Amino acid sequence: MSLNQLLQNAPSNLPILQATFGLERESLRINNSSHNVAQTPHPKVLGNRSFHPYIQTDYSEAQVELITPIAQSTRQALRFLEAITDVAGRTIPKDEYLWPLSMPPKLTADEIIIAQLDSQYERDYRQHLSKVYGKLLQSMSGIHYNMELGKSLVQSLFEQSQYQSMVSFKNDLYLKLAQNFLRYRWLLTYLYGASPIAEQGFLDTPLDKPVRSLRNSSYGYVNHDDVKVSHENLEQYIADIERCVADGRLIAEKEFYSPVRLRGSKHNRDYLEKGVTYLEFRCFDLNPFDNKGISQETIDTVHLFTLALLWLDVSSAIDQDIEKANQLNETIALGHPLDRLPEDAPVDEIMTALQAVVNHFALPDYYQSLVDKIKTQIAQPHLTIGGRLLKHINNQSLETFGQEKGQAYHDYAWQAHYALKGYETMELSTQMLLFDVIQKGIHFEILDENDQFLKLWHGDHVEYVKNGNMTAKDNYIIPLAMENKIVTKKILTENGFPVPAGAEFADKETALRYFFQIQNKAIVVKPKSTNYGLGISIFKDGTDLTSYEKALDIAFSEDDSLLVEEYIAGTEYRFFILDGKCEAVLLRVAANVLGDGKHSIRELVAIKNSNPLRGHNHRSPLEIINLGDIELLMLAQQGYKPDDILPEGVKVNLRENSNISTGGDSIDFTDKMDQSYKQLAADMATAMGAWTCGVDLIIPDYSKPARKSVPNATCIELNFNPCMYMHTYCQEGSGQALTPKILAKLFPEVS
Amino acid sequence: MSLNQLLQNAPSNLPILQATFGLERESLRINNSSHNVAQTPHPKVLGNRSFHPYIQTDYSEAQVELITPIAQSTRQALRFLEAITDVAGRTIPKDEYLWPLSMPPKLTADEIIIAQLDSQYERDYRQHLSKVYGKLLQSMSGIHYNMELGKSLVQSLFEQSQYQSMVSFKNDLYLKLAQNFLRYRWLLTYLYGASPIAEQGFLDTPLDKPVRSLRNSSYGYVNHDDVKVSHENLEQYIADIERCVADGRLIAEKEFYSPVRLRGSKHNRDYLEKGVTYLEFRCFDLNPFDNKGISQETIDTVHLFTLALLWLDVSSAIDQDIEKANQLNETIALGHPLDRLPEDAPVDEIMTALQAVVNHFALPDYYQSLVDKIKTQIAQPHLTIGGRLLKHINNQSLETFGQEKGQAYHDYAWQAHYALKGYETMELSTQMLLFDVIQKGIHFEILDENDQFLKLWHGDHVEYVKNGNMTAKDNYIIPLAMENKIVTKKILTENGFPVPAGAEFADKETALRYFFQIQNKAIVVKPKSTNYGLGISIFKDGTDLTSYEKALDIAFSEDDSLLVEEYIAGTEYRFFILDGKCEAVLLRVAANVLGDGKHSIRELVAIKNSNPLRGHNHRSPLEIINLGDIELLMLAQQGYKPDDILPEGVKVNLRENSNISTGGDSIDFTDKMDQSYKQLAADMATAMGAWTCGVDLIIPDYSKPARKSVPNATCIELNFNPCMYMHTYCQEGSGQALTPKILAKLFPEVS
Repeated sequence: MSLNQLLQNAPSNLPILQATFGLERESLRINNSSHNVAQTPHPKVLGNRSFHPYIQTDYSEAQVELITPIAQSTRQALRFLEAITDVAGRTIPKDEYLWPLSMPPKLTADEIIIAQLDSQYERDYRQHLSKVYGKLLQSMSGIHYNMELGKSLVQSLFEQSQYQSMVSFKNDLYLKLAQNFLRYRWLLTYLYGASPIAEQGFLDTPLDKPVRSLRNSSYGYVNHDDVKVSHENLEQYIADIERCVADGRLIAEKEFYSPVRLRGSKHNRDYLEKGVTYLEFRCFDLNPFDNKGISQETIDTVHLFTLALLWLDVSSAIDQDIEKANQLNETIALGHPLDRLPEDAPVDEIMTALQAVVNHFALPDYYQSLVDKIKTQIAQPHLTIGGRLLKHINNQSLETFGQEKGQAYHDYAWQAHYALKGYETMELSTQMLLFDVIQKGIHFEILDENDQFLKLWHGDHVEYVKNGNMTAKDNYIIPLAMENKIVTKKILTENGFPVPAGAEFADKETALRYFFQIQNKAIVVKPKSTNYGLGISIFKDGTDLTSYEKALDIAFSEDDSLLVEEYIAGTEYRFFILDGKCEAVLLRVAANVLGDGKHSIRELVAIKNSNPLRGHNHRSPLEIINLGDIELLMLAQQGYKPDDILPEGVKVNLRENSNISTGGDSIDFTDKMDQSYKQLAADMATAMGAWTCGVDLIIPDYSKPARKSVPNATCIELNFNPCMYMHTYCQEGSGQALTPKILAKLFPEVS
Repeated sequence: MSLNQLLQNAPSNLPILQATFGLERESLRINNSSHNVAQTPHPKVLGNRSFHPYIQTDYSEAQVELITPIAQSTRQALRFLEAITDVAGRTIPKDEYLWPLSMPPKLTADEIIIAQLDSQYERDYRQHLSKVYGKLLQSMSGIHYNMELGKSLVQSLFEQSQYQSMVSFKNDLYLKLAQNFLRYRWLLTYLYGASPIAEQGFLDTPLDKPVRSLRNSSYGYVNHDDVKVSHENLEQYIADIERCVADGRLIAEKEFYSPVRLRGSKHNRDYLEKGVTYLEFRCFDLNPFDNKGISQETIDTVHLFTLALLWLDVSSAIDQDIEKANQLNETIALGHPLDRLPEDAPVDEIMTALQAVVNHFALPDYYQSLVDKIKTQIAQPHLTIGGRLLKHINNQSLETFGQEKGQAYHDYAWQAHYALKGYETMELSTQMLLFDVIQKGIHFEILDENDQFLKLWHGDHVEYVKNGNMTAKDNYIIPLAMENKIVTKKILTENGFPVPAGAEFADKETALRYFFQIQNKAIVVKPKSTNYGLGISIFKDGTDLTSYEKALDIAFSEDDSLLVEEYIAGTEYRFFILDGKCEAVLLRVAANVLGDGKHSIRELVAIKNSNPLRGHNHRSPLEIINLGDIELLMLAQQGYKPDDILPEGVKVNLRENSNISTGGDSIDFTDKMDQSYKQLAADMATAMGAWTCGVDLIIPDYSKPARKSVPNATCIELNFNPCMYMHTYCQEGSGQALTPKILAKLFPEVS
């Protein structure tokens, strides 16, 4: 049974879509005032290029290469690329952006600095390339698309075949795919070609008209004519490339530039023993209409396209067919972007195969829509990327367009800069940590997205992280202790730290008898299990027995046990402690607006809400302030209506509570807070044995230092899962970056 | 204002009952065949006597002294004593028991081996005592009752007084208490005296009749007549004792044997500077009717008695009054147990004071009932302990009674030997750990009883423990990983361990498409979030698409996501891993009975349930088997009725599931299981990074070794809070003690 028959005879529920994907995207860094290629070095904050898995340099120092890990789906691959693009965009100097086009802006060879890699071999190899092809050619950028068919899929096909050896089967399978890719890649050039012109000075002889894809034509990144490699069979393919290397036509096997490359081993000859593992498709121009350089639709269409290639017959005269297809591709690549496909293009063959795959395997409607879109674009060339790009050519240049798009994508990255693009659904602290992880080149896997559970590793060193700061650095019993307020209080007390005095009662009689001890004191009566919830009575100036008894009844109506605690007056601050050191202090104040004598309260709220830091549902550092019933009542109690103009300098609170979740402000107090309180909070965390810990202290006067004998502060809560993002992006103050510190302590060998 | 006026003028809601308590109980170890004093050394398992806070030796090697920590209430004090008594009872050799009476059994001086303490001073001191008082006298045992008035109580009284110095105030307060204690202690002798006779050979001249309390009479443990100490004031008291020591009448201050002793400093003179902290009442005979030697009622009555002593006036001629009271006490102590109190006993004074305290402070009804009981016992001497003991005297001996009671208390301790007496409401594994903690002499505090949260310490070394095995030895992230089944599976898979293959689906279409991959396999379809619960379908022999789809619908009706997993055939075993080593293996089988050809199924169930290991609600190692609807249905399905006689050797299951909680059997497989599986389970825990961990493996044939390449086992769950007790007390097999191993690893310096 031939390979295509194998597919055509396969059951319709074969897991045909099963595959893994990897994307590599190159882009030049551009200075945003000169709009020339950046002359700055690769950002130091990215650390050592010798191991960075995501952000590398390609040919030149200014040409970043963004590499995704292996993804289990096309969506995951694009999500990786989106995040890595985001990190790269926010890591390069802020006055630079990534060039969105495959063809570089106007540049001279002098501007192109060969990548300053550690490896002498890599530097020599790049020197060789500049001699053979010229530095300008090397500054073209594109996207490489790696794909491996799913293991179950390949196994099923293998079992239905007459093959005895899986290695032979896979080699034949991937070679067939590569052959057919070369036979039909002209369709991809037509659909996705996006290098219509070269800027002045790039070509010795300028083109007389825009084309579809310079990069995919003979002007592009191709070997010289004397490099001829047969695709008839694997042995021949290997031998041909080895001969080119032996006689110096190629400096190394990897210098063989084909639109598709067999992958899985460093040396081609190893495929005979170990088998080809996956394919690398290298023909994609950057799509300037997408900030990632490639769209979801394109990735899925190419995936479907490869399945159609498997479905198709193999030709009986491979090398001739490929040669013919190369000529067809050249015609299309150098054709005008509004030209239709040439008459001799075997459109029906490939379209029939695409449709057959969708039908045979009853693929979801989405894949039918992809086929329909190809048809539409074949019929209407102006809908292709090349066609759409045409109208942006101005004076035979795309420089203005490239500058505008590049700057727009730069602005997009910085717009909600706290979020990691692609991962906005995860908790903000986890997004921030993932940003750092990608920036520092630490490997990651999301073990459970809903649970914010990450696996991070560098070499053999593995760390697991949940919620951005729950790690192996903390021991198990301490968070369990902190979960229990009574236990926490006992441990703090036994270690000599100030906590509100108080007692727990399980019956009213004993609680009433306790009145003698608290009758002249400010107290809080609260049910044991809830905090700041129902059933709480506060007596700031002491109370009488009747009121006390009523408070007991209220609290007992909520729980079997209650706490009678000393009421602590003062302001509450949150101290973030990491590894024995206070890294941030935050003051949270109730949602409020400050009058300017011009705007109404409603308008002031709207202005405050326009801060990009404000959003919804804890996915932004601050929450949108609502003018709901609670806020309107609060205003009314102060004698205001929402449409009143608030006098200049008058501050109106819209809430009693200071929670960030109800629109409260976060104010970075790290620098203002007296060091003695930071030390006190750090000492508390250390006494508890906590690595990360949020310490809530009530402090009457933060400018008056804490002393051991008179702490001037009371601890009302310890938090074993302290929120980090609120310290980093604040309503007032510069904020404190915490996730990089967590990461540096988890992986000291990387920083 | 005098001290008694202070109390009488205090507000009724003064926290009058606030106090701390400590109990010390001595007892002789007795060999249960000879019924003589044990000649064995103090048990080695108790470790070093130089620091053991709970179980010490008093005068002789066979005289254990049980010491409670400071308790915040009388209930807590007795609970401590109960637990320490339990631990002591189960730690001494199993053929020994604790003598329940103050007076020793018949014994000779030769049988009394002076305690083999490390300290030369302590050994010399005991040699001195034997010379001065004789070894026999030293073998009497009793209970010392320590009490400190509550800090808030003392503070309130101090504030209402005219005292300027708290030290003077406390010294006067406690001295007054001690004075009045000596004036009225005859009442305690009457109520609690329980040493009516001496066994043959103890006294040179035998008594002619039973008395109330030999031990509290001049026959008891008293200094020689030349030791005279005034209680007029503290200075005089200190000077008198110092003079006795200086001229050799006493070898040390502690040799001054008073029924009440001032406590808080090693040397009496320090009280002048530092103040008396608490009092030690030393007059209590062991109550043989209580396994702890003292009852709750007695402890509370004595507490109330001390408050009445505070309420009473001070006499103007202290030493004379005390001397008179001593004579009264001697009369009562040497009176017949059925004698009423002498006419000249000032009963009304003390009874009025007791009643006044109850009334003035509106104490709970319980305290009124204590007063009423005293009145009854005063009226009816046969109701006192001494009175009740009378009828057990046989041939002028209490030996038979003492043997019976001692053996009964011994049997009680061993009856539900998995439980720690006094702490039966806590989880069983925590009870077991607390047993070890007390046995090894590690300090403990229950920080939260409902939460099973303990603080343990030895010197400066503190450890917190929850549920018996959650400690600082485990890191925080690993239990969080184990809590998430998907994360656990990923980590195990990535480390090369066998888990059931499978996939998670959030939509039916994708799940249906997966059918191709599982159609010929044994599978389980289950909702993601539940385990062994609703919505699970098992296909042990593969399935067709229709049944598969139905199973998907059922699972999706329970959860948004479902898992399709390989079904693993075999038997499930639980491996308990501690610190990289498998310490126990358990097989759990469904509730069942085995026929003997004589009894009905119902009778067989009753016989099985009579095992003391079976109880209710996880407070016993095994649960009572119910014959409820489920069990009856299960029987009917097998063709049985509950009253059928089951043939010999026929085993009938009463449940499908093998949970211990539904009456399942635990079978210790630690020795039977092939070592290779123990290693595999330990390797899994190590790969996860877990210190304690329960590993559930499905093993088709446990006698066939696991190999790395063919593990012959699949891990279906890891448990971060593995139950320990079920490994220790099993239906079959010897069981594995795990809590001592936990403790030894937490406190290596103690073992």
